Amino acid sequence: MGNSFGETLHLSIFGESHAPSIGMTLEGIPSGLPVDLIALQDFMKRRAPGQNPWSTSRKEADIPEFQSGISNGVTNGETISAIIHNTNTRSGDYENLKICPRPGHADYAAQVKYGGAQNVAGGGRFSGRLTAPMCIAGGLCKQWLAEMGIQIGAHIASIAHAQDDSFNPIHPSLSAVLEDFPVLNPDVGDAMKWIISEAQKEGDSVGGTIECAVTGIPAGLGGPLFDGIEGHIAQIIYSIPAVKSLTFGEILPYGSQNNDPFTVENGAIRTLTNHAGGILGGITNGMPLIFTVGIKPTPSISKPQQTVNLLTKEITTLQIKGRHDPCIVPRAVPVVEAAAAIAIYDLILSGRN
Amino acid sequence: MGNSFGETLHLSIFGESHAPSIGMTLEGIPSGLPVDLIALQDFMKRRAPGQNPWSTSRKEADIPEFQSGISNGVTNGETISAIIHNTNTRSGDYENLKICPRPGHADYAAQVKYGGAQNVAGGGRFSGRLTAPMCIAGGLCKQWLAEMGIQIGAHIASIAHAQDDSFNPIHPSLSAVLEDFPVLNPDVGDAMKWIISEAQKEGDSVGGTIECAVTGIPAGLGGPLFDGIEGHIAQIIYSIPAVKSLTFGEILPYGSQNNDPFTVENGAIRTLTNHAGGILGGITNGMPLIFTVGIKPTPSISKPQQTVNLLTKEITTLQIKGRHDPCIVPRAVPVVEAAAAIAIYDLILSGRN
Amino acid sequence: MGNSFGETLHLSIFGESHAPSIGMTLEGIPSGLPVDLIALQDFMKRRAPGQNPWSTSRKEADIPEFQSGISNGVTNGETISAIIHNTNTRSGDYENLKICPRPGHADYAAQVKYGGAQNVAGGGRFSGRLTAPMCIAGGLCKQWLAEMGIQIGAHIASIAHAQDDSFNPIHPSLSAVLEDFPVLNPDVGDAMKWIISEAQKEGDSVGGTIECAVTGIPAGLGGPLFDGIEGHIAQIIYSIPAVKSLTFGEILPYGSQNNDPFTVENGAIRTLTNHAGGILGGITNGMPLIFTVGIKPTPSISKPQQTVNLLTKEITTLQIKGRHDPCIVPRAVPVVEAAAAIAIYDLILSGRN
Amino acid sequence: MGNSFGETLHLSIFGESHAPSIGMTLEGIPSGLPVDLIALQDFMKRRAPGQNPWSTSRKEADIPEFQSGISNGVTNGETISAIIHNTNTRSGDYENLKICPRPGHADYAAQVKYGGAQNVAGGGRFSGRLTAPMCIAGGLCKQWLAEMGIQIGAHIASIAHAQDDSFNPIHPSLSAVLEDFPVLNPDVGDAMKWIISEAQKEGDSVGGTIECAVTGIPAGLGGPLFDGIEGHIAQIIYSIPAVKSLTFGEILPYGSQNNDPFTVENGAIRTLTNHAGGILGGITNGMPLIFTVGIKPTPSISKPQQTVNLLTKEITTLQIKGRHDPCIVPRAVPVVEAAAAIAIYDLILSGRN
Repeated sequence: MGNSFGETLHLSIFGESHAPSIGMTLEGIPSGLPVDLIALQDFMKRRAPGQNPWSTSRKEADIPEFQSGISNGVTNGETISAIIHNTNTRSGDYENLKICPRPGHADYAAQVKYGGAQNVAGGGRFSGRLTAPMCIAGGLCKQWLAEMGIQIGAHIASIAHAQDDSFNPIHPSLSAVLEDFPVLNPDVGDAMKWIISEAQKEGDSVGGTIECAVTGIPAGLGGPLFDGIEGHIAQIIYSIPAVKSLTFGEILPYGSQNNDPFTVENGAIRTLTNHAGGILGGITNGMPLIFTVGIKPTPSISKPQQTVNLLTKEITTLQIKGRHDPCIVPRAVPVVEAAAAIAIYDLILSGRN
Repeated sequence: MGNSFGETLHLSIFGESHAPSIGMTLEGIPSGLPVDLIALQDFMKRRAPGQNPWSTSRKEADIPEFQSGISNGVTNGETISAIIHNTNTRSGDYENLKICPRPGHADYAAQVKYGGAQNVAGGGRFSGRLTAPMCIAGGLCKQWLAEMGIQIGAHIASIAHAQDDSFNPIHPSLSAVLEDFPVLNPDVGDAMKWIISEAQKEGDSVGGTIECAVTGIPAGLGGPLFDGIEGHIAQIIYSIPAVKSLTFGEILPYGSQNNDPFTVENGAIRTLTNHAGGILGGITNGMPLIFTVGIKPTPSISKPQQTVNLLTKEITTLQIKGRHDPCIVPRAVPVVEAAAAIAIYDLILSGRN
Repeated sequence: MGNSFGETLHLSIFGESHAPSIGMTLEGIPSGLPVDLIALQDFMKRRAPGQNPWSTSRKEADIPEFQSGISNGVTNGETISAIIHNTNTRSGDYENLKICPRPGHADYAAQVKYGGAQNVAGGGRFSGRLTAPMCIAGGLCKQWLAEMGIQIGAHIASIAHAQDDSFNPIHPSLSAVLEDFPVLNPDVGDAMKWIISEAQKEGDSVGGTIECAVTGIPAGLGGPLFDGIEGHIAQIIYSIPAVKSLTFGEILPYGSQNNDPFTVENGAIRTLTNHAGGILGGITNGMPLIFTVGIKPTPSISKPQQTVNLLTKEITTLQIKGRHDPCIVPRAVPVVEAAAAIAIYDLILSGRN
Repeated sequence: MGNSFGETLHLSIFGESHAPSIGMTLEGIPSGLPVDLIALQDFMKRRAPGQNPWSTSRKEADIPEFQSGISNGVTNGETISAIIHNTNTRSGDYENLKICPRPGHADYAAQVKYGGAQNVAGGGRFSGRLTAPMCIAGGLCKQWLAEMGIQIGAHIASIAHAQDDSFNPIHPSLSAVLEDFPVLNPDVGDAMKWIISEAQKEGDSVGGTIECAVTGIPAGLGGPLFDGIEGHIAQIIYSIPAVKSLTFGEILPYGSQNNDPFTVENGAIRTLTNHAGGILGGITNGMPLIFTVGIKPTPSISKPQQTVNLLTKEITTLQIKGRHDPCIVPRAVPVVEAAAAIAIYDLILSGRN
């Protein structure tokens, strides 16, 4: 908890979806690390709206403007700060929400917490738009991890009941994720696209799950109790709006099935299976780190919904207008990668033993 | 992450399972709060080993000795510290583990992290025994929350494939959990006991899930991004050994199913369903907080298992002796309650708006 | 330590003196607090350069542009973020510093820490310019404290050997500080101005001390050990560049002199003297909080100085050009007030008992 | 602020002077570090009461009992925890203090903060006795720093108006501090002992200052703003009861005097003088780190003092009985060393660049 994330690095995110800008500060990063801004922009694009038919028609360039921390293409040891100017906002779409809260949104809870002063427009600070600054930080961390041989990749594991193949838990092939629509199995991808477009036609939305894998991560990171890796990753994964579940590896019912027997592979200690998802006792064991994130369907749907008028306390019907993603799972894939990259790079920096 | 938990309160846990004592310090607690030490002892007993046939035959009294922070039955504003003396330890059971790590245990990962210096005996700092100090802190927080009308209860939701009934998500009946074996449905409880005893007979172990509900929690606690309640609860829940998954509420595939319509009940804003598990945008919405925790089967099983001799790098077979729980899920139920109580009491203390 | 300040609020400062902008994020502030932006601008002006003959001739408007957290003149519960665009920078003045570090500056130490990647220009992140964002946060906190009857004021206590009168430690008259040049005794103020202008003529600089008083602060804030107020204030005061000493109240040699006898004044518990500076056992005692800050002379002087060429390791002579304050003490007065306001407002927000 | 200290290590102190025990937990320490328990005991003895005529006649053995974190003479990577059992307490001496607070003590401020629940006896948590656990942690850190060639030493710089010689700021001779009474100049030491015994005869107490030096510390530790070394050290130094001032190096009035010219010594960059006390821009510059701590006279004096009866609000006279140090400065010398060792070892562990 707290407004920033990280033990050795510190990530803070500021701004609101309909304010002049949003941004992030990232502190505690060593100096002298190379930064590839073009690769970062490519990574940001995977999250950006308006890229394809199954996401919102809003278009935002999402170009980070760095204010400090990077000189001549390398980090300079100072706080890295970046701003994204908000463009293309339409505050008019959001007027009624303080009075008639949208089901599934933070409107009512935030109203209780902040009172009349809060800025509901566009979800304010609750908007998925705040994941763009997280992708700046995460995109950078991904680059620095890649330099160490640590790769992070994610794919859509399911949309409604359509299930993609899983990563091989021993040797996950991150490069097998398709570029256009991030799945492993193109046929399942086509089915998912159809499910999303059907939901959109009916004014509905659809949720799903994302599987993320990290390869090349060394054994020995993390620790017992509050130092555990699961809790550290969970904290940042759950900061992504709409995430409601998180599972590390998989749990088989019996110990004799679930325990991963040790083996030796080219002189290195490995396990034959990887139900542990690469973590034992809160510490990495050198196997790929694997976790699955559950994402609820976008709460903004155009179907009529029951709500309450907070002034009159009368039950009423709400119909949400505006441009919304019928399914945020595809755009959340790079956000999950970004979150994982930040958590793991922080572990590497902290990695005391 | 970090070695202590909490934003306003700070819980630290110290000791190892086979050291002279284990204990905890709990800081940031207001002065003048009543403490019922007998009720605390009763709560601790729910976690203690050796209480019934389906847990380990080790018996430890687990009586907390308070060193500071409580005077004349009330908190005095100073750090609350308590120690539990370890008795009944048998270090001899654990000799070989530095060389031949047990599958599913932290042995190998800890060996990489800490090198030869670490104290493997009894799992050292990775032992489930360290949840006893967590139950001291959590048992106290539960008492203080109850004074405010906030109740926390949990039950075994599943053991292997045997599924208990779920709490009613709108009006969960915490008092319906059975005392002897914490389930809602006694028939399912009997089936679970049978599953556990069968696993034990075969030298195996079995995992399961725990559902936890919090009633009476006010709307408006938490916040967006890194202030979210899910991440805060996740951090402490994942610090419990063997926890591998966490789900808040439940996710239905389509937005029109998953969104909880608002309604009015006796003048209060409520929702008709509670798929959100009481949290919207990282903030409590006044509905019961509900989450489910997945617990892997105890890694200690007496069946022979494949491991590697770390000195010779030869594959070998390991057979674990000693006294172990065939299923830790029943004893983990109060631990999950304790963890929830600590996280929520911290939120209440921090509860700025 | 760490890159942000505060227990309940969190202040982060980002940017460099010669980057596009500098700024701050301030998290954990309640919603609904009024913000007077004109009063804030007036407060910022007290720190801004180029206001008078005895400071640098650089002029920077230092107008904060808020990005989030304030709507319609009140805080909205979200992170307050503000940017100040840097104008009027002349990087050319700073070229040689990576090779020949300036005595008294961070150049050499930062070179060791960050290596070649660091941005020396204008002191980079070490510049006194970074106190401008601190004044945004502190100016806001001062306003919110004033609403509660807590006033903060500071004055120049000494410049070289010229000593101003001290605040009355029982009833400090904050409004007696002169506006133009912040001293209590105008004759001493004139002497100080003369000392500064003589130092400037000789290409030298001069240091001094600042006394700060806080009135209206309630008893009972803070705590023992690491919760003590002195350490909390020290952490932010020492973050101001050039601060080298800090004293709370004053220490008289003997206990019989130094102890402040208790008395009653209009029914309230007070002390007859205030050598404790308003703090006993790390906790406010209801008396004015008083502390004195020692500020070294500006290290940038135009007199020739001995340094070392880091490439050749030859001793050489350096002559610093550019525009520099001959004495930063006057401009540091509002910065000390800002730092005190942030620390005390944080204590108020945290003020659990 | 907060109840624990440290960025990478975390020190928590628990207990009260008249509780069963006091203790500390120290987390984040690497595994495999050797621990010399006999040297630690010798270090503890320097702080222990009853060692000589000029301190309190109370005798407490102050033997730390380690509960975890050390196995076979080396750290094992787990939390280091230790307890000191309190013996020889006389609660009866402290009965009246909740009603008639002692001048110079925390009694009144703590009463406002904690209300009637707090445990005044012996100063409770405000007692200088809580510096014993700090000496356990600090004594260990001193050993680990010495392994790296970093030495820490302190001496009494003044008692009342008697001033000891200062350390040579370029090459401080830590071993020149006398063992029996920690000063550099034995004649001054004799004068100090006379001042203390005179104060004791008159039922008074006396304060003073302590100078601390750290040699062998590498350049490049710390950072700008909230990462600065001064603030980090200040936080722990001010957690020592009775500390009221802290000065790094010394401040000369003019920049041309105060700046330390760079030079080369055996190929290493050094400064000719060391007014900066080894810190520039919040970062170590490789010169000895030097700071001076001001300690108020012991507030417990047997002379009659004016106080207020908090129940009747009548002014009354208080005469403190019991055994108290007429001067705590000599016993505070190892505590200052311990605090410095903890802060600097934390900086070394955190020492990212």
